Amino acid sequence: MTEISEGAGTQTETGWLSPEDLELVRAHVPIVYVDAVPVRVDSLGNVTEVGMLLRVAADGTISRMVVTGRVLFGERIREALMRHCEKDLGPLALPRVPVNPTPFTVVEYFPNPERSGYFDPRHHAVSLAYVVPVEGECQPTQEALDLDWYTPDEAVSAGVRMEMTSGHDRLIRLALAHVGKLP
Amino acid sequence: MTEISEGAGTQTETGWLSPEDLELVRAHVPIVYVDAVPVRVDSLGNVTEVGMLLRVAADGTISRMVVTGRVLFGERIREALMRHCEKDLGPLALPRVPVNPTPFTVVEYFPNPERSGYFDPRHHAVSLAYVVPVEGECQPTQEALDLDWYTPDEAVSAGVRMEMTSGHDRLIRLALAHVGKLP
Amino acid sequence: MTEISEGAGTQTETGWLSPEDLELVRAHVPIVYVDAVPVRVDSLGNVTEVGMLLRVAADGTISRMVVTGRVLFGERIREALMRHCEKDLGPLALPRVPVNPTPFTVVEYFPNPERSGYFDPRHHAVSLAYVVPVEGECQPTQEALDLDWYTPDEAVSAGVRMEMTSGHDRLIRLALAHVGKLP
Amino acid sequence: MTEISEGAGTQTETGWLSPEDLELVRAHVPIVYVDAVPVRVDSLGNVTEVGMLLRVAADGTISRMVVTGRVLFGERIREALMRHCEKDLGPLALPRVPVNPTPFTVVEYFPNPERSGYFDPRHHAVSLAYVVPVEGECQPTQEALDLDWYTPDEAVSAGVRMEMTSGHDRLIRLALAHVGKLP
Repeated sequence: MTEISEGAGTQTETGWLSPEDLELVRAHVPIVYVDAVPVRVDSLGNVTEVGMLLRVAADGTISRMVVTGRVLFGERIREALMRHCEKDLGPLALPRVPVNPTPFTVVEYFPNPERSGYFDPRHHAVSLAYVVPVEGECQPTQEALDLDWYTPDEAVSAGVRMEMTSGHDRLIRLALAHVGKLP
Repeated sequence: MTEISEGAGTQTETGWLSPEDLELVRAHVPIVYVDAVPVRVDSLGNVTEVGMLLRVAADGTISRMVVTGRVLFGERIREALMRHCEKDLGPLALPRVPVNPTPFTVVEYFPNPERSGYFDPRHHAVSLAYVVPVEGECQPTQEALDLDWYTPDEAVSAGVRMEMTSGHDRLIRLALAHVGKLP
Repeated sequence: MTEISEGAGTQTETGWLSPEDLELVRAHVPIVYVDAVPVRVDSLGNVTEVGMLLRVAADGTISRMVVTGRVLFGERIREALMRHCEKDLGPLALPRVPVNPTPFTVVEYFPNPERSGYFDPRHHAVSLAYVVPVEGECQPTQEALDLDWYTPDEAVSAGVRMEMTSGHDRLIRLALAHVGKLP
Repeated sequence: MTEISEGAGTQTETGWLSPEDLELVRAHVPIVYVDAVPVRVDSLGNVTEVGMLLRVAADGTISRMVVTGRVLFGERIREALMRHCEKDLGPLALPRVPVNPTPFTVVEYFPNPERSGYFDPRHHAVSLAYVVPVEGECQPTQEALDLDWYTPDEAVSAGVRMEMTSGHDRLIRLALAHVGKLP
């Protein structure tokens, strides 16, 4: 599998895809992404908390974000989901990738912030978004500065929403609606 | 919560709802049910096996069936799902009730087998059907004679389908389609 | 099919189910309902407006509500959806019942308003909720006092939310999230 | 929006993306696709027929296929769905793009036919698959040789399945399961 860019804010190419080629790809086709909203659940499957990373977003701000990243050439969606969850939440997070391959929504990120309300200055990305229960210990790794857990009420509060950009606050509301926990 | 009848084949009333009252209810309103298709999953969330009980079905036959049962007055859907999974799979099954309250399909059982293809001679039931990963040890309890696990290929094979009645073979195919594993 | 009660606020029994029997049923089993959120869509399937009825709600208030009603004995879910849409929106509404029988959420109404956040003083109802595009002319009929259309922004505004009870304001937000239009 | 290749079997580039650049893109990133399963529905939303095109598939065979095609840079998913439906079914087909942006399944096409069971020799494509009711007159256009309508029973019959390649027969079964009509 060929690496173009892992996560937001880094440009770690592997293989022979040069920065020029990367720019060519990004300028001409939508890129396939996955977004994962990590959650804690009780024994009945009720979502009790939502996890959000603090990190440098694609737009350069330090923001609260969900787990997000590219699907590589040759990679299955489930593999990409697991890889990005482990990369951002640590190897002991024990993410439970859903049995159903259908995302709860499809997020269309555009360089033009007006196009869909989801914004990425780097490219047009089509992201499959999943709610992923995590049962283990989370240790934000790599580029994430922090990981915090919020109740559904906190997650949609004005304070937390102000820390989010690129439409991620709306994505959190859609995820909470999907699990029936939108306040 | 008031008991009318737990599972297929028993009539264990609690509370003051007499058999006559039970008949009155059954003759006049659809009954709310949940169906749970127990599955084993690998670390990426791929369904590897489907569990089916061997038990006396509503139509009197000894059949392969999914977990099924009524939602009681005052009971949440998640509580009913968990209760029926524990009742049929044992207390150590560790069922993972989905975070999303939406069923993968709605099964309409009718006394008339032609009405929808799903049949229950006792009543009209509207059943919310879920795929439920189980991570622990399953021990079929109470009325179930046995619990067996099948790969997706086996679960839709002619042999296993012949052991199923009431439309449960179709329900298994819908569940496998939902998780992307219909052969 | 036996009538118990059509919609909120009426008690039109047909068949031999007496008011006493109706009370017996309501006191002992959850009742199967459907909720329909009528919407207007543009040519690409984007929801542009949400329709809400003004009517006497189950709790006695005059409220903004979605289309809601019981599933009768022997009735298919799709038939109930169509019947209630035609009853509340008029015979020329041309509702497009979705091809997928899965509701976008399952609403659990309880006599205890704390139980789920969805409230119905009359009974415990399990309601399958659908978004239903309507293409024709809507004429609120029978018990509805009025039908108004709101943009997604208006539908979740404080003013409209104050006109809603029983959790219907939350149901509207879940419906808008489902179609990707939650502001 | 930049054209790489429209549909299966043609290479109509517009803009400056040369065949060499196209090959570069295809060799390094998954391509975003949409698949649409056209259906006829009755007044209650029941699927009565499935439409399948006869055309030259990506693997060079003449096969029965669903509507499929790429999402362009800058294009919304709904726009791509509508564009491909109109291109393949004609301008009078009146496709009803679903209000919910969530696909019924995500199809992962790989150059390696073993990888997922969905095959495309040209590239790795991640396709969002939708069931699309069409209400108007269909006129297969451009590269399609023919369009035929099948009942659910016919659509999964051995005869029709033999005319399908690349996993499209499985996609049809998943679509029928999604709408509750898998035989």
